[in-house]
Amino acid sequence: MNSTCDTLYTADWLLTQNDGRDVIHEAALAVAGERILCVGHADMLKILYPEARRLELGNAVIMPGLINGHTHVPMSLLRGYSDDKALQDWLHQDIFPQEAKLTPELIELGARFSMAEMIRYGTTAFYDMYMLEDAVFRAADEMGLRAVLGESVTQFFPSLAGRDFAEYQERILRYAEEWKNHPRIRQAIVPHAPYTTTPDILCTCRRLADETGSLFGMHLAETEWETQECLKTHGKRPVAYCADLGLLQPDSTYFHLVDLNEQDMDLLAESRCAGVHNPASNMKLASGVAPLPSLLRHNVPMGLGTDGPASNNGQNMLREMYVASLLQKVHTTEPTALPAQAALDLATRGGAAALHDPFIGTLEPGMKADFIALDLAAPNMQPLHNLPSQIVYAATGAEVRLTVVDGRELYRDGKFLTCDYDALSAELRQAQAWIRKS
Amino acid sequence: MNSTCDTLYTADWLLTQNDGRDVIHEAALAVAGERILCVGHADMLKILYPEARRLELGNAVIMPGLINGHTHVPMSLLRGYSDDKALQDWLHQDIFPQEAKLTPELIELGARFSMAEMIRYGTTAFYDMYMLEDAVFRAADEMGLRAVLGESVTQFFPSLAGRDFAEYQERILRYAEEWKNHPRIRQAIVPHAPYTTTPDILCTCRRLADETGSLFGMHLAETEWETQECLKTHGKRPVAYCADLGLLQPDSTYFHLVDLNEQDMDLLAESRCAGVHNPASNMKLASGVAPLPSLLRHNVPMGLGTDGPASNNGQNMLREMYVASLLQKVHTTEPTALPAQAALDLATRGGAAALHDPFIGTLEPGMKADFIALDLAAPNMQPLHNLPSQIVYAATGAEVRLTVVDGRELYRDGKFLTCDYDALSAELRQAQAWIRKS
Repeated sequence: MNSTCDTLYTADWLLTQNDGRDVIHEAALAVAGERILCVGHADMLKILYPEARRLELGNAVIMPGLINGHTHVPMSLLRGYSDDKALQDWLHQDIFPQEAKLTPELIELGARFSMAEMIRYGTTAFYDMYMLEDAVFRAADEMGLRAVLGESVTQFFPSLAGRDFAEYQERILRYAEEWKNHPRIRQAIVPHAPYTTTPDILCTCRRLADETGSLFGMHLAETEWETQECLKTHGKRPVAYCADLGLLQPDSTYFHLVDLNEQDMDLLAESRCAGVHNPASNMKLASGVAPLPSLLRHNVPMGLGTDGPASNNGQNMLREMYVASLLQKVHTTEPTALPAQAALDLATRGGAAALHDPFIGTLEPGMKADFIALDLAAPNMQPLHNLPSQIVYAATGAEVRLTVVDGRELYRDGKFLTCDYDALSAELRQAQAWIRKS
Repeated sequence: MNSTCDTLYTADWLLTQNDGRDVIHEAALAVAGERILCVGHADMLKILYPEARRLELGNAVIMPGLINGHTHVPMSLLRGYSDDKALQDWLHQDIFPQEAKLTPELIELGARFSMAEMIRYGTTAFYDMYMLEDAVFRAADEMGLRAVLGESVTQFFPSLAGRDFAEYQERILRYAEEWKNHPRIRQAIVPHAPYTTTPDILCTCRRLADETGSLFGMHLAETEWETQECLKTHGKRPVAYCADLGLLQPDSTYFHLVDLNEQDMDLLAESRCAGVHNPASNMKLASGVAPLPSLLRHNVPMGLGTDGPASNNGQNMLREMYVASLLQKVHTTEPTALPAQAALDLATRGGAAALHDPFIGTLEPGMKADFIALDLAAPNMQPLHNLPSQIVYAATGAEVRLTVVDGRELYRDGKFLTCDYDALSAELRQAQAWIRKS
């Protein structure tokens, strides 16, 4: 690691999210290459690194970049295309027919556009699964975000991913080869869900993850309907089914985890796999309320995710923290449930666990330089009595002034630095005309 | 009414919220003085009003200003001061002790600051209740917002409002005299709640409303605890208690309305009083979930409110619509519950009913010129498949580019036009130091 400070970022406040959850007033963050060299008081760091380029943010808070633990970025194409429908109608009448006609070009465009949204609203890393995911790999590479990316697979072939499961496997091996050792992007093997796959497919996917050194992820226990289906088909609840197939492993991440009982949570906890909570999507699709406080008591490492832009309808992790906290309070009838600090932990430290990356989620020496800065002068951000409260309960997302990944600035004060946003918007408008006509 | 168009606002889209919920593409809105002269296609209106000043908003949607049906604006002073506590601890340990030390100057400052937040995020009218409300009258007058304002009263004296109930009544009469015939501000008589007042106080308040031509409002049925208290003290549920006192009348608005049974809703509907739903506050304080779809089926005119900034923690009606819709979907387990259009109706047409002002809430000829414009170029606002969906599910509030009340621009493209926002922020920072020390 480089020990020369390239840039010294100063701000009135810095939220470390370290073990002590230290908050630093009149703070600075020293970046060396892709890593954080040091955090501390601005006065001190200015003396230590007098030669460094300086970016003085003033009335702002520097904090770890937010980590979106579960999404389907290409679905920005279908944001607002269909809402307020029962899940099966939504999927079969509106979403699937459009998705069947997607091209790699459209998928890459949708992915880029979602990434612009994430960059704008303070997300620095995300875990994605979709079809023709190579387009998402390319987009993440160019846009500069950190990502865990997986080609989603079901038992239904032919699909966009290939004529048959053999072609899917070839695709996985190709991605593994093409993207190995990328500094920011890692592959995950992501079968869609227990109810859209066979035990054979799931076990082969698990083996592919081992063989390619990829991570492993899947939608799991999203609805009560899924539990009933699994009981009918396999005689077990979804989590037990996965456990018996050997799928609950420490490199794995399970998305949604809504319909769980105590035994399910014990199984998840024992296996040391991670989970991701998606409150807005679970609310909007009326899937149910995940037993998040109970999962946390079981010490299941939990991240937070938006799910895709067609079921949220944004990629805004500040909004997601707010919704997460409010939902647990009303659902448990305990206003003390999921306090602001716990919601922040989900989106930072929990996100690191969900992406299986120990070098993100906090601002500490040696960690990857993934951070954001929020404006504290906005009318919803004053007065400042409590930083975590302000971030979780008052911020909208639009307060983000700076988004940095691996030490590289992706967004600063209204400017996208890794894409031509106006050109991207124009492309999207053209694509939209295509979607409407089709 | 003036028939000369002063300003012609054009935008790619205009959402009328009229009875047909018409949406106009390539639209224009013609303003004459404080009123809307006409809405229609830009090409046509440009021919009709060639002399008018033109403001061309381009890729934006013009829509009715949002109406915050229930808040306590001075409480921006305490935003984030205390969170994640049970209601009684929150009130007695943290909120009440601070409130007891408030001065008219601090209350006016807090009110102004909340108004800046409302103006920034697209609210044009609000219904407020607090103590020393004359400070809020002054602030609303100067900031240019439309408001229904009331001095809150309980049975506990002395209070900030006076040494005894007689002093409170004098205060009400003074406000009535001082603010009569104001073009934008109207008084409401607002006893705090059934559990903090006596039948005598409530009936006197009702008489004061009649005598002064003021509106009438109160917190009602906010929690199950309130119902139990009312049953113990008065042998009736809160709504029946109010009905028997003659308090349910068409000029009245009841806030929260969470713990209701069928009979309560029948009583509310028969009386033609209005209600206001406060989903974020009800969630954050774990008060419960209002039976909103049922209230709407009973034809109770319902608005939407944020409640005060200490229990939300923002004054952002775009966020409130999002939360309202998601909460009903997950609570009723029906993804079709409170669709985007219904949420929009709450914050516009419903808000007009809650404020008892038939000239706001839609964009139609003759209505008051209260409107906003949202940027549609932001990364969360594209592609545009469905306008109501985009506004309710995707917008954060920060997309607001223009806020107009009575034909007067209060905010435009980053600039506050009725206050010096930086000076206001500086004042708030000083006040904050006072709150901390006290």
